[in-house]
Amino acid sequence: VIVWLNGRLVDSSQAVVDVFDRGFLLADGIFETLLVVRGRPIWLREHIERLTAGAAALAILGAPGTYAAAAIVEALLVANGLLEEPRVAVRITHTRGPGPRGLAPPTTHSPTVLATAAPVGPPPKAVRTIIAASTRRNPYSITSRLKTLAFTDSIVALREALDRGADEAIMLNTAGNVACATAASVVVMKGDRVWTPPVEEGALPGIARARLLAAAARDGLDAAERTVRVEDLEAADAVVLTNSLRGAVPVAEIVGLRPAGSGDGGGLLVDLLRADIEDAARED
Amino acid sequence: VIVWLNGRLVDSSQAVVDVFDRGFLLADGIFETLLVVRGRPIWLREHIERLTAGAAALAILGAPGTYAAAAIVEALLVANGLLEEPRVAVRITHTRGPGPRGLAPPTTHSPTVLATAAPVGPPPKAVRTIIAASTRRNPYSITSRLKTLAFTDSIVALREALDRGADEAIMLNTAGNVACATAASVVVMKGDRVWTPPVEEGALPGIARARLLAAAARDGLDAAERTVRVEDLEAADAVVLTNSLRGAVPVAEIVGLRPAGSGDGGGLLVDLLRADIEDAARED
Repeated sequence: VIVWLNGRLVDSSQAVVDVFDRGFLLADGIFETLLVVRGRPIWLREHIERLTAGAAALAILGAPGTYAAAAIVEALLVANGLLEEPRVAVRITHTRGPGPRGLAPPTTHSPTVLATAAPVGPPPKAVRTIIAASTRRNPYSITSRLKTLAFTDSIVALREALDRGADEAIMLNTAGNVACATAASVVVMKGDRVWTPPVEEGALPGIARARLLAAAARDGLDAAERTVRVEDLEAADAVVLTNSLRGAVPVAEIVGLRPAGSGDGGGLLVDLLRADIEDAARED
Repeated sequence: VIVWLNGRLVDSSQAVVDVFDRGFLLADGIFETLLVVRGRPIWLREHIERLTAGAAALAILGAPGTYAAAAIVEALLVANGLLEEPRVAVRITHTRGPGPRGLAPPTTHSPTVLATAAPVGPPPKAVRTIIAASTRRNPYSITSRLKTLAFTDSIVALREALDRGADEAIMLNTAGNVACATAASVVVMKGDRVWTPPVEEGALPGIARARLLAAAARDGLDAAERTVRVEDLEAADAVVLTNSLRGAVPVAEIVGLRPAGSGDGGGLLVDLLRADIEDAARED
């Protein structure tokens, strides 16, 4: 496997970072994961906008812009023979780079930028989720709106899900409302209403989530950010999890709640987001 | 500088981790930072107990035990000529090691264990703090009780403090009570009462914090975990920040609150913890 690291393509056997990299020691960085369909990155501009906003919030220099990122993605795909692959995940990781001991960011820094590509399979038809008991999302931190490297809580929640025989975990926020899943947004549908937890309630501003809301609104649905309560999950016609790699995946069951809705609404949301991805894959 | 990495001493110019290390990509790991005084690690057993508990909670294999850690510390000090140094910080970092794409931990893993040593100066006589507005501690996550690599929030709070002309940030929890500082515990004294936020309220189970409470109790003070409200900071005779490297450091001012107490009580807490460290430095 070839990866892109700080400006050059290197074989993964040689692809290493300094042990003093603050991304490694302190999760002092951010990342994006995007889908590439037959050489075409999906929603690249949105991903780079979020990466840029995250880097600005953390005051980390050197986030690649959209053109640079497009060039990195293409170089990675060519180097790995993935240009014709129908589904490739590209992850761009951006850290503050190495620093001296302690939390305080160094006054100057040499950021680390890593990009990796790997083919991925088709999304699951549906998932079984739990509501995580081990952790909740924290809306009182600005980092809940950033895709930082601090994914420990999501790993804890996912491990809890796997331990309890489920595929995914829905995370509540500290007030007990629904926030998001471990690496996906939660979107609920009932009648012609489609809604998802507000960013202010601890949800990451998911890109697939925003695309789905816009597509649903164009389709005449009443789509918006609104509080999602646990009861809303039970009463919904459908609950789907959205992210850039999988699109929308219906939740077939939430352990401990009555089975989620028939999935008809879920099918509609899946189709809306799939069509949006297909449009993006055709764009010039 | 020589570091200890996965069983051997290596020059830091050669000390690198795989770009697929989950510590780097997902903050999937834990760490400890301990003080070493002239070759003697302070509170080593307590640090290794916390590391072991953290590794167990995250199901990461291969945490070094106390004897292994003592050997690592000694090897590091010898290699770096630091055996006679009065104050050395040793950090032990333990991650799940490299893994494939995605959040799910691999079924088998090769953990990464890194240890580094660096001389540190004397602790500051006092610090000026803010109460962080950018982030709060999340008591609803089991990770708030673990010293995981996810230090992004503490970095954000510390940057806020530095931007506002202070040295440190006190972090509230999501309920608005005091939890801890960015890399230290908060201990409050008023009359003969000494108290610190409970772990259940989002405080890390700090080792210096536990040592200070025990020392204060032995000294006849009424020392315990109890809720600390912002008003308690204002009304206190003294507020100190404790951690393993600095001992207890008095808070001279909290921006926006009236100046903290005279510092007499602070001096007592500083002395109690310093005596405890000196005892540990003499132990056989």
